[in-house]
Amino acid sequence: MTRVGVVGASGYTGGELLRILATHPEVEVSYATSREYAGKPLTAIHPHFRGFFEKLKFSQLSLDTLASQCDLVFVNTPHGVSSSLVPKILDMGLKVIDLSADFRLKNPADYRVWYDMEHPAPDLLAKAVYGLPELHREEIRTAQLVACPGCNSTAALIALLPAVESRIIELERISVDVKVGSSEAGIKASLGTHHPERANVIRPYDVTGHRHVAEIEQELQALAGRKIAVGMVPHAVGSVRGALATVHAWLSGDGVDEQEVWRIYARRYGREPFVRIVRGAPFRYPDPKYVLGSNFADVGFGVESRIGRVALMAAIDNLMKGAAGQAVQCMNLVLGLDETTGLRYPPLRPA
Amino acid sequence: MTRVGVVGASGYTGGELLRILATHPEVEVSYATSREYAGKPLTAIHPHFRGFFEKLKFSQLSLDTLASQCDLVFVNTPHGVSSSLVPKILDMGLKVIDLSADFRLKNPADYRVWYDMEHPAPDLLAKAVYGLPELHREEIRTAQLVACPGCNSTAALIALLPAVESRIIELERISVDVKVGSSEAGIKASLGTHHPERANVIRPYDVTGHRHVAEIEQELQALAGRKIAVGMVPHAVGSVRGALATVHAWLSGDGVDEQEVWRIYARRYGREPFVRIVRGAPFRYPDPKYVLGSNFADVGFGVESRIGRVALMAAIDNLMKGAAGQAVQCMNLVLGLDETTGLRYPPLRPA
Amino acid sequence: MTRVGVVGASGYTGGELLRILATHPEVEVSYATSREYAGKPLTAIHPHFRGFFEKLKFSQLSLDTLASQCDLVFVNTPHGVSSSLVPKILDMGLKVIDLSADFRLKNPADYRVWYDMEHPAPDLLAKAVYGLPELHREEIRTAQLVACPGCNSTAALIALLPAVESRIIELERISVDVKVGSSEAGIKASLGTHHPERANVIRPYDVTGHRHVAEIEQELQALAGRKIAVGMVPHAVGSVRGALATVHAWLSGDGVDEQEVWRIYARRYGREPFVRIVRGAPFRYPDPKYVLGSNFADVGFGVESRIGRVALMAAIDNLMKGAAGQAVQCMNLVLGLDETTGLRYPPLRPA
Amino acid sequence: MTRVGVVGASGYTGGELLRILATHPEVEVSYATSREYAGKPLTAIHPHFRGFFEKLKFSQLSLDTLASQCDLVFVNTPHGVSSSLVPKILDMGLKVIDLSADFRLKNPADYRVWYDMEHPAPDLLAKAVYGLPELHREEIRTAQLVACPGCNSTAALIALLPAVESRIIELERISVDVKVGSSEAGIKASLGTHHPERANVIRPYDVTGHRHVAEIEQELQALAGRKIAVGMVPHAVGSVRGALATVHAWLSGDGVDEQEVWRIYARRYGREPFVRIVRGAPFRYPDPKYVLGSNFADVGFGVESRIGRVALMAAIDNLMKGAAGQAVQCMNLVLGLDETTGLRYPPLRPA
Repeated sequence: MTRVGVVGASGYTGGELLRILATHPEVEVSYATSREYAGKPLTAIHPHFRGFFEKLKFSQLSLDTLASQCDLVFVNTPHGVSSSLVPKILDMGLKVIDLSADFRLKNPADYRVWYDMEHPAPDLLAKAVYGLPELHREEIRTAQLVACPGCNSTAALIALLPAVESRIIELERISVDVKVGSSEAGIKASLGTHHPERANVIRPYDVTGHRHVAEIEQELQALAGRKIAVGMVPHAVGSVRGALATVHAWLSGDGVDEQEVWRIYARRYGREPFVRIVRGAPFRYPDPKYVLGSNFADVGFGVESRIGRVALMAAIDNLMKGAAGQAVQCMNLVLGLDETTGLRYPPLRPA
Repeated sequence: MTRVGVVGASGYTGGELLRILATHPEVEVSYATSREYAGKPLTAIHPHFRGFFEKLKFSQLSLDTLASQCDLVFVNTPHGVSSSLVPKILDMGLKVIDLSADFRLKNPADYRVWYDMEHPAPDLLAKAVYGLPELHREEIRTAQLVACPGCNSTAALIALLPAVESRIIELERISVDVKVGSSEAGIKASLGTHHPERANVIRPYDVTGHRHVAEIEQELQALAGRKIAVGMVPHAVGSVRGALATVHAWLSGDGVDEQEVWRIYARRYGREPFVRIVRGAPFRYPDPKYVLGSNFADVGFGVESRIGRVALMAAIDNLMKGAAGQAVQCMNLVLGLDETTGLRYPPLRPA
Repeated sequence: MTRVGVVGASGYTGGELLRILATHPEVEVSYATSREYAGKPLTAIHPHFRGFFEKLKFSQLSLDTLASQCDLVFVNTPHGVSSSLVPKILDMGLKVIDLSADFRLKNPADYRVWYDMEHPAPDLLAKAVYGLPELHREEIRTAQLVACPGCNSTAALIALLPAVESRIIELERISVDVKVGSSEAGIKASLGTHHPERANVIRPYDVTGHRHVAEIEQELQALAGRKIAVGMVPHAVGSVRGALATVHAWLSGDGVDEQEVWRIYARRYGREPFVRIVRGAPFRYPDPKYVLGSNFADVGFGVESRIGRVALMAAIDNLMKGAAGQAVQCMNLVLGLDETTGLRYPPLRPA
Repeated sequence: MTRVGVVGASGYTGGELLRILATHPEVEVSYATSREYAGKPLTAIHPHFRGFFEKLKFSQLSLDTLASQCDLVFVNTPHGVSSSLVPKILDMGLKVIDLSADFRLKNPADYRVWYDMEHPAPDLLAKAVYGLPELHREEIRTAQLVACPGCNSTAALIALLPAVESRIIELERISVDVKVGSSEAGIKASLGTHHPERANVIRPYDVTGHRHVAEIEQELQALAGRKIAVGMVPHAVGSVRGALATVHAWLSGDGVDEQEVWRIYARRYGREPFVRIVRGAPFRYPDPKYVLGSNFADVGFGVESRIGRVALMAAIDNLMKGAAGQAVQCMNLVLGLDETTGLRYPPLRPA
């Protein structure tokens, strides 16, 4: 059994990592840290774990303990913290799956623009692999540091990859409209997440440049070999889990109909273990509701030939394919395991 | 007191009309029809009306009774029914506020394209006034037939009007992403609206050409004096009420910043009694949650100069400004009343 | 116009008071206080009020200003604060509608038992009138200080009054099961109200003696003239608004069937302007959903003769009949107005 | 691999059985029937199964095929259908796990009283084993026919068993207040489950004698060796999954405090693999939210010594421990497998 540590285990992504790992047949969680809950059982904040992890308590982070007790570490700290911590863990020879934004961007200058920070370990940026297996599977297998994508980015990229690769859409007029559930904001309470305010919302936020745009543009530009501009508006909606990216795009040529788009997507994603193409009954397009609790990304599209536009959609569970599930998928690749180990089960429905 | 009839009073829009009219100081509901509930009290399907309308029962529709008991009629029947019914009511000299789609489009050919029907009264189309007071206030005052906009159209148009009038956006690359609550689908139960399936959804539908696109394009083209293409993707989300239109558009020139957009919207909507511009705390952009139960449309926007794009947003309660509230606003204009009569109260919050 | 002040206007009950008073024809809000938002417009925390109260800002509480600007004051401060503040306001000759728990109990000793506090103004307890018009209408008319009931208490008492008065149930085996929406907890965010934790809950709390039990027992004992024990378990459920009290009780004699219970409740509540008895389609028993946004209490019951039990139910909107609506109902009585002034409109549905 | 059939596979319980069995290591689903969807892939109604069960289609029920393709059958048909079907399946030598109500009651007369039907196979009632492992584990192991409890019954019985066995409560004054999510009503759409009507409800139903009372009383009476009367009021609340039973009971003696109740419950349930006792942070009492998607029943209690009452609570996922999960637990016992096989994973949270 590979021993894995979870640094930052008391939030929702940490909890979801633990949930997946609780039944993963090839690894065991040997270490879980939390500043706030150090010394307490996991159930102090994760009531669903009653009866699981009974020997594990939250620890204060200690690099020495990490080195002695873990072979691989999930780093789940806020951006700006990971960038200082990860280099130390790598130096001890451990593999790292980082879930923060701190190693996703290749260009150090982008951290100044998008995150208002001077990156403390810019040389690591080139070594980090962007953890989207659908795009970087082979590099992930040999990576020492995987930088997992954000949930909005995962949905947007999975919706867009085949269309950008095949150049069927205009690359300078891409609009991404994202809708996400409340768990996306993490476990910290605030007025904006207070149930009476957060229930039933359809609330746009970060309208003029969400930080995830930086990584979406980076990855798409690498694919297209040219500059691409992505406009994105995320919206908080009433569910707890789930993210849907709806890409509004314009066809670059006349010959593309829905059948052709289907062929392109089927060819691109046909062998992907966690991407499913949605067409037909009972609901025609992807909906995060039907990937709930699973690592699947459901993809769909529609073409309106009348005005030469296409809608590209991808639905994920933001805590799974959008965070912890994808991180474990990357871990499986890093460890040389079957990519689907511990992750291949159906979504929960209805819920 | 003006005597008004509600034809089609057992659904949600009918119920909402009744709710507004219950406290309207200048009119009284003298007639309410329902095929399914004829002969029964309103509470047979509207449990919230216990203690109200105690003398009113649902009637089968009779044109004679309508003529004798009403001065003005809200027609709230499915599209395809209104187009046959409304001419008869007009012939009897009554004024009609129609909430169906049957008189919204000016060009009879558009009914073939978008509604797959040959319009039975094409000559009436020119006489009908599209019931968006922000656009056709003066014509509504003197109209005998008002065709109220759809809820998606209302949100989209209110978000777009100032931007199209002022030509700050590219008119051939307009994408409208709409999110609506479940009441938008009406009172008829189906698998898609069954609570376990409908709760927590983020479900795209009518992705390749929702019918409301026809009226949006018609109205915008009349404003711009040229052809405009609007791509729209509506999404069902988890709330019961509320519709948000997020317009993803691209600025047509370089000089437009957020301050300039603000000036344009403030000038356009400054005197509108039911349009409010949202900027600032506690939540920066419009959210239907904060117009719940009221006739307000909240409008907002954000400019991302980096890539020359703008997001334009409008939030409404789909049953109020998106249907019954707007219909009563039109009725007030038709009757020569103050436009806000019976409609000027704050939204319900939290809810 | 009577000038009213709202002390504690930035929370949900304060906001709901303002919402009702915004359209109340006989009073105007002349003063609204908030420690946190003093100096800011009401929209700083109440986004739904955009376009209303445009001349009113939150003030720091000043007794002098209160005295000069108000004729009547709603005191909406936490328990323990009201008890010190209210005597000063009364001394200035103003009438007070207090929404805290500080003047609900008659026996000073009960404050030690239930609220763990020595009451600073015990002599005022006898003068305060418990603000349930269905029980104390005439005393409220002449009161200088009205102590409004808690939301759970209002629902429980309205469900129980006729049954206790008529002695049809065993008085020593009364169980009250309450379910409430999230707005009941107020506007302060916490882990327990954080949307991802609070959505979809069915969460019991204060299982072994909620404080509202004290006032329920007090009022029922006064009615029955003997000691009564009430067991109560409140539960947080997934809605934002609404409270339902389900009383599980046992019939004290054999002769009571559902028809008899109906007669007792109809006789007791027949003239109450805000109590409605529910029987029949479309849903047979009371549900807070159908009083949403209104001041109504819907009441219903069922008798299972097989085992001699009865279920008594009352549904309210916790912010309306459970708080602000009832407070305005009391204000109307205190001011000699028609009791329903500004409060008689149908609930919002669906929502 | 044991080959199992699911008769009635297109509803929610059928879907949940399939979901569990999809990853069960010891059985494979060889047959799934649906009248409405026969001939179609499972995804025609179960969109979450995309990528699973790819070789399985819905079949029309054929006893011959059942006999040749299955070793054990889950019968998931409406009550009144199972009672005719199950005897035929048993005659073919297959083992049956029945999820309907048709074999839960021992006394044929009870079917007349509670289900208004003459039971067609009364002699089978004695052979059927009531499928609550916490009560009938050993009999289930050797049963040919297991009759799985209803979801309300499961929650009520698990809350009550230790208290009734130990006689700490008055047996003639037991009130059970149940709250359930919308999935409990099955997959058939109706006005009552239509999202706009069903969202945010707190809706009592079957107030004067829900059918599950019959099996609860039967099982408790067998335990107590005397007649017991249980009053039950179920309520629909806003979640999709989850059932909470809150038992309001009165202590039969003076000496019982919370510590003593804890000892009784800990002793009774200490070795139960799917019962967890809840005490302490972060939320003190059971909530179905924290068993979501799992087979756990969380149990808790509170004692109010002041008036000699106790509240006993049990929280389950109605589709898991309340239906499909418990059915698989029984199947494991019947097949001689470890009882937790395929069922031991943590709940999903947050959701």
